[in-house]
Amino acid sequence: MPAEQDPGGPAGPRDPHGRDRDAMAAALALSEDVRGRTSPNPPVGAVILDADGARVGAGATQPPGGPHAEVMALREAGDRARGGTAYVTLEPCAHHGRTPPCAQALLDAGIAAVHYAVADPNPAASGGGALLREAGVDVRGGLLAADVAAGPLRAWLHRTRTGRPHVTWKYAATLDGRVAAADGTSRWISGPTSRGEVHRIRAAADAVVAGTGTVLADDPWLTVRDADGGLAARQPLRVIVGTRGIPETARVLDEAAETLHIRTHDAAEVLERLAARGVVDVLLEGGPTLAGAFAAAGMIDRIVAYVAPTLLGAGPTALGPAGVSTITEAHRWRVEGVTMSGDDVRITAVPVADEGGR
Amino acid sequence: MPAEQDPGGPAGPRDPHGRDRDAMAAALALSEDVRGRTSPNPPVGAVILDADGARVGAGATQPPGGPHAEVMALREAGDRARGGTAYVTLEPCAHHGRTPPCAQALLDAGIAAVHYAVADPNPAASGGGALLREAGVDVRGGLLAADVAAGPLRAWLHRTRTGRPHVTWKYAATLDGRVAAADGTSRWISGPTSRGEVHRIRAAADAVVAGTGTVLADDPWLTVRDADGGLAARQPLRVIVGTRGIPETARVLDEAAETLHIRTHDAAEVLERLAARGVVDVLLEGGPTLAGAFAAAGMIDRIVAYVAPTLLGAGPTALGPAGVSTITEAHRWRVEGVTMSGDDVRITAVPVADEGGR
Ligand SMILES: NC(=O)c1ccc[n+]([C@@H]2O[C@H](COP(=O)([O-])OP(=O)(O)OC[C@H]3O[C@@H](n4cnc5c(N)ncnc54)[C@H](OP(=O)(O)O)[C@@H]3O)[C@@H](O)[C@H]2O)c1
Ligand SMILES: NC(=O)c1ccc[n+]([C@@H]2O[C@H](COP(=O)([O-])OP(=O)(O)OC[C@H]3O[C@@H](n4cnc5c(N)ncnc54)[C@H](OP(=O)(O)O)[C@@H]3O)[C@@H](O)[C@H]2O)c1
Repeated sequence: MPAEQDPGGPAGPRDPHGRDRDAMAAALALSEDVRGRTSPNPPVGAVILDADGARVGAGATQPPGGPHAEVMALREAGDRARGGTAYVTLEPCAHHGRTPPCAQALLDAGIAAVHYAVADPNPAASGGGALLREAGVDVRGGLLAADVAAGPLRAWLHRTRTGRPHVTWKYAATLDGRVAAADGTSRWISGPTSRGEVHRIRAAADAVVAGTGTVLADDPWLTVRDADGGLAARQPLRVIVGTRGIPETARVLDEAAETLHIRTHDAAEVLERLAARGVVDVLLEGGPTLAGAFAAAGMIDRIVAYVAPTLLGAGPTALGPAGVSTITEAHRWRVEGVTMSGDDVRITAVPVADEGGR
Repeated sequence: MPAEQDPGGPAGPRDPHGRDRDAMAAALALSEDVRGRTSPNPPVGAVILDADGARVGAGATQPPGGPHAEVMALREAGDRARGGTAYVTLEPCAHHGRTPPCAQALLDAGIAAVHYAVADPNPAASGGGALLREAGVDVRGGLLAADVAAGPLRAWLHRTRTGRPHVTWKYAATLDGRVAAADGTSRWISGPTSRGEVHRIRAAADAVVAGTGTVLADDPWLTVRDADGGLAARQPLRVIVGTRGIPETARVLDEAAETLHIRTHDAAEVLERLAARGVVDVLLEGGPTLAGAFAAAGMIDRIVAYVAPTLLGAGPTALGPAGVSTITEAHRWRVEGVTMSGDDVRITAVPVADEGGR
């Protein structure tokens, strides 16, 4: 843990004009933009203010092998970084990996102060704060830590702590919990706003996972498309789980993105295979059988539910068998947020006792 | 429709200090308190300010045969009503029913101005506004009309318009739409806050309805209890629907409240039987089979769902067969409100195109 903790509330005695907070919020926003493009590295954002408080540099983690956020921001700032303050969403690294350590780069640039949000939990990389502090830099940790840890860094922190990719289960259901009608039709359960949001969630994921049942029933593309239906430049890995074969003509086998077919019923095996490929952030898109298998294995780390204000009274429910036979065994979650998504209700939930991914 | 409409926003040019609005809000609160005790009459609230704007009288509808809200408020105000203003949630009646017309009582008391929220849609009773206006009283309608029509008067307005009691379907389900686990256990799906709220909802209803399936599975009391578990003084009628017999030892047959067993599968017949008894406001408490029958018949007028952040993956779902076989036939609703109820999400919904019960 860092020596000095900055609680990061609204502008306070230490940050009377909210300058630190605004700069860290900007760094957070920059890191949001690179989600899905940095794994296995964390999506980090950095902002540099010069000695007068003017913003002179900004950057975010580049794809693996490319520069980290601090280096991107320092490059933009150039000489103006000297005597300035760096705001970084994650404690600067102190180890030589594929890139030189960022803590050293900050020292070399003559940065006088460093604020970071989340301390680096990775033993090999941590120590950047201490290294900077020993060199006389004013180092503070904790500013907007909760937002960063529950947001852009959530999946990476989870992977670092558990060794497993982070799984977000996303589904769209009716008010009575159905994901399709009795005849199997399911287009559209949720409204256009929710469907648009799903493409943004997919864009931030490293991999999108569905079962053979969904592929055979719905023939989905599982790609990221923009509002006009055009394919996004970067596509997450598509992963199909199940022992049945997939017809060559299935849309998930088109050229739009890479697809991996994992012939297993074991959720842990799926995550091991994905971890080995550097996947950190997984979006589980169904259907109920596969989601039940992940829930039974305790391998769902976040739920994003789009509940449409419709009733069907029949049809498959959102979650299939999950190892629960009596009410006391129910899987318990904590509601993280509830918002409207067009006409739908969007509920996000995290495991009980989960503290923002930390 | 009244000649003058008062939109009833925040304090405006016509009501610079929000005095009118505050008085009507007080009348609305008084009417909330008598819900469940006035049917077949509407739960109405009234407040009287004297010529100086001081509150001199307040009242609400008494049980059938007793005085209406205006009369209760006038009794308290006595002579101080002369030259004052009356605020009533419903247009004062002008007809001789079991009680003399309220419009006449307001005239006799020398009231100078009358604000009402909702115009009386009942042809036999309406005309109170016109009668008062002809007598020189300054009459305005519409203040807080939307709140009153969507709140305390919603059920009565619905009954007046359709001839049918208003049905609120209340249920508690898991995030995956289950109302019980695979083995039938269902205590407790929702948390203590939601369970407490249900007693307040029951207290405002004229009748609480469940199917024989729920009675045989859960042996519920279906009574209104306070926080300490004590029985409330007034209990809604308990109604059990289904052809099977109910054991004499069933809790719904105890002395705590009256119970009616309707041996039918026809939702319309249930509502006709209840309407004949003067029931206006029905709380449908399940289970899925009965709720499905009501939904299929188009006889659910409002949904109150308590969604607990738990997952079961098996067990009965909130709604049984409701006449829908394909997605395009789904029953469509509009979310009216979403709030947290303890750890649960409370979603209320009304039929699409429903305008606050009017
Ligand atoms: N609204 C939504 O959010 C949404 C999302 C997705 C799907 N859906 C709907 O869900 C329905 C399809 O449901 P589904 O349950 O068949 O889809 P699914 O969960 O995608 O696929 C089921 C298949 O997954 C495989 N599988 C993987 N792990 C398993 C395990 N532990 N146990 C058993 N099987 C396992 C099996 O494949 P093999 O048999 O090949 O071994 C199984 O048949 C469709 O109607 C679709 O529209 C809705
Ligand atoms: N969480 C909640 O909010 C909640 C609330 C209530 C119940 N539940 C759960 O729901 C389960 C009971 O489910 P359920 O569906 O059996 O209960 P139910 O709907 O209360 O009762 C079903 C019975 O209703 C009668 N019925 C009335 N109209 C019908 C129609 N149109 N078609 C068919 N039957 C009709 C039938 O009785 P006859 O067979 O006697 O003719 C039928 O067996 C229990 O596990 C209970 O815990 C949960």
